[in-house]
Amino acid sequence: MTPNMPVARRMADIQPFHVMDLLARARRLEAQGRDIIHLEIGEPDFPTPAPIVEAGRQALADGHTHYTPATGLPALREAIARFYQDEYGAHVPPERIVITPGASGALLLVMGVLVNPGAQVIMADPGYPCNRHFVRAMEGEPVGVSVGPDTAYQLTPDHLADTWTERTAAAMVATPSNPTGTLTDTHSLKSMIDFARSQGGNLIVDEIYQGLVYGERPMTAAGLSNQVFVINSFSKFFGMTGWRLGWVVAPEPYVRELDKLAQNLFLAASTPAQHAALAAFTPACREILEARREAFRQRRDVLLPGLRALGLRVPVTPEGAFYIYGNSTAWGEDSFVLAERLLEEAGVAVTPGIDFGRHGASQHLRFAYTRDIPVLEAALERLRQWLG
Amino acid sequence: MTPNMPVARRMADIQPFHVMDLLARARRLEAQGRDIIHLEIGEPDFPTPAPIVEAGRQALADGHTHYTPATGLPALREAIARFYQDEYGAHVPPERIVITPGASGALLLVMGVLVNPGAQVIMADPGYPCNRHFVRAMEGEPVGVSVGPDTAYQLTPDHLADTWTERTAAAMVATPSNPTGTLTDTHSLKSMIDFARSQGGNLIVDEIYQGLVYGERPMTAAGLSNQVFVINSFSKFFGMTGWRLGWVVAPEPYVRELDKLAQNLFLAASTPAQHAALAAFTPACREILEARREAFRQRRDVLLPGLRALGLRVPVTPEGAFYIYGNSTAWGEDSFVLAERLLEEAGVAVTPGIDFGRHGASQHLRFAYTRDIPVLEAALERLRQWLG
Ligand SMILES: Cc1ncc(COP(=O)(O)O)c(C=O)c1O
Ligand SMILES: Cc1ncc(COP(=O)(O)O)c(C=O)c1O
Repeated sequence: MTPNMPVARRMADIQPFHVMDLLARARRLEAQGRDIIHLEIGEPDFPTPAPIVEAGRQALADGHTHYTPATGLPALREAIARFYQDEYGAHVPPERIVITPGASGALLLVMGVLVNPGAQVIMADPGYPCNRHFVRAMEGEPVGVSVGPDTAYQLTPDHLADTWTERTAAAMVATPSNPTGTLTDTHSLKSMIDFARSQGGNLIVDEIYQGLVYGERPMTAAGLSNQVFVINSFSKFFGMTGWRLGWVVAPEPYVRELDKLAQNLFLAASTPAQHAALAAFTPACREILEARREAFRQRRDVLLPGLRALGLRVPVTPEGAFYIYGNSTAWGEDSFVLAERLLEEAGVAVTPGIDFGRHGASQHLRFAYTRDIPVLEAALERLRQWLG
Repeated sequence: MTPNMPVARRMADIQPFHVMDLLARARRLEAQGRDIIHLEIGEPDFPTPAPIVEAGRQALADGHTHYTPATGLPALREAIARFYQDEYGAHVPPERIVITPGASGALLLVMGVLVNPGAQVIMADPGYPCNRHFVRAMEGEPVGVSVGPDTAYQLTPDHLADTWTERTAAAMVATPSNPTGTLTDTHSLKSMIDFARSQGGNLIVDEIYQGLVYGERPMTAAGLSNQVFVINSFSKFFGMTGWRLGWVVAPEPYVRELDKLAQNLFLAASTPAQHAALAAFTPACREILEARREAFRQRRDVLLPGLRALGLRVPVTPEGAFYIYGNSTAWGEDSFVLAERLLEEAGVAVTPGIDFGRHGASQHLRFAYTRDIPVLEAALERLRQWLG
């Protein structure tokens, strides 16, 4: 930036995804005819389920192309409320559900409503990289807490008690977590909600990978308290990444504030996407999603032992999302260099730890099992050969 | 908000659209069987043009449902670049075009990149209400400049020279303007761009109503300089409000910053919408849009003389957008009360001036001609009867 092209100070703290550079390099290799296996991609390879696509096409044919209310289509808010009831036995009135442009939009709104300049927001490191940038965008201060295998890479009530200050506005939990795929437990969640509230702050629980849990029954923080912010999205479990649709469940007194901010910053979420999403809760669609969940589980059960056998250390078995986060020091010192070498030399693209924070970043890699089993097996074979 | 439910200070400065309350009241009246004519709606009544809808449906059938790059589909950036070339003879390389979730998303990104806490952004009052809230969200300070008929309700180089301080980061112009439908001229625009740059700041030109100009040939600030931010959208001229798709043309050194922020705050704009928008520039679609532009002109030519004849003072003829902004003091003192009475007593919904700022707010009403001519005539008849 030339001095005559000034840029706001916050931008110095807002990092691009490092994996984007790797991706660009991968594209160049592919343009040269190299075959690259992409295990860096944080979205399902599956297309949007047919019933949702069909509903979207119908919505377009029916002319549903105007703005909706800022909080979303009433019918969609009701459908999500019913989903909480039917799926989790959680009573969440539709009035507390605000539809947003992705979980991204939900996170932006919640930070806008909660975070004063200089206010702190506690979050796990490693964690979803955008979280600290949402906080920074609002002139708040992200406080990363180093988490490791001992707490399944999750924040705990003890972390909150140790880290909470007068300046803390909120703490964030993601369960299942990106990048680790690990879960927190109900008891711990409930304690964190209560602790945050007792301090006059709030807990924000990101449940975007909620439906993608293997072994355990998925749960929701919205069933534990009506004093918690719950973030969710149609992106991952429902296979609608490109449609840009999510939601937030908010404590009742905050709904009006979220509405005001959404009116001004977004106007509304996508109308065709909202109509399409109504089909996400139909039995036909749920069946497809269930089959996909099972496919993800099977992939994990191929990739995880395969990587462990090759020397990647994964001390806590990931029980959700579609990520495996492992210590890669047996393969090389710096995981960023390693990611470059894996791409160039083995033709396997993965995400370096640096994209998820600072704690142990250069010792870790994230593998996304967003590819079919034969592709995962081919990737394992390439790694095996590369390791010699 | 209870003290135990703290909310960020900025929220006290972020107002909801007052017209939303009127709209809710209108819905109640309609539920009681009353017929309401809606002239408060800031979006075209036309559905999205068929070729765009068809392209959207095809994109869904083809499985275009994954994330795109944060800056948008390369093909769409190229199509917009070609549009600038063909339509305006303006050379705008695709690399300088960043696709966003509506002009709303573009405004948020640009403010995020330009506005430090405490930095000022100059804007016209009356003006688009969200502008000051985008600035406030980033902890900047919106500086409203009272504008009136003498400058066609537009900022001028003189305003900038009078108002610019050490703390000013940018000034915003919208042409055609919401709520006034008035234009600024090329000469004035060019001077403002140069002035802002000479002060080490930037001019942001919102061209969302660009295609909707009657009489004059539409122009673009992007053709005047490569040192200006130009905001645009598929919402209004292209009839895609609910799809949430817009763009920003940025000076080259800022593109990387916008990309970084978009990656983190939005991930990307809607994928089906981006594919659909590729059809917006086809001859078949342009023909439909041209016919609609002509329909809007005819509506203006019915509503404007009609309202003037009834005593609404509209000193500057609106040459663009689909709004008529007039002084309503001949009808009643306070335009907010007036809007309520027009709704309840005459069955005509309009937007009170207060939604657009403070300057003369209580003396003005905005009428949107987003309804067919017979409906506009019926509205005029209702007003005539109500005025007695
Ligand atoms: C933990 C987490 N939260 C939120 C998001 C945002 O997703 P979206 O905006 O598509 O809903 C992601 C996307 O990768 C994520 O991993
Ligand atoms: C002047 C102006 N700018 C920006 C917008 C935002 O529109 P969108 O986000 O739908 O592109 C509007 C919408 O009414 C507007 O009137």
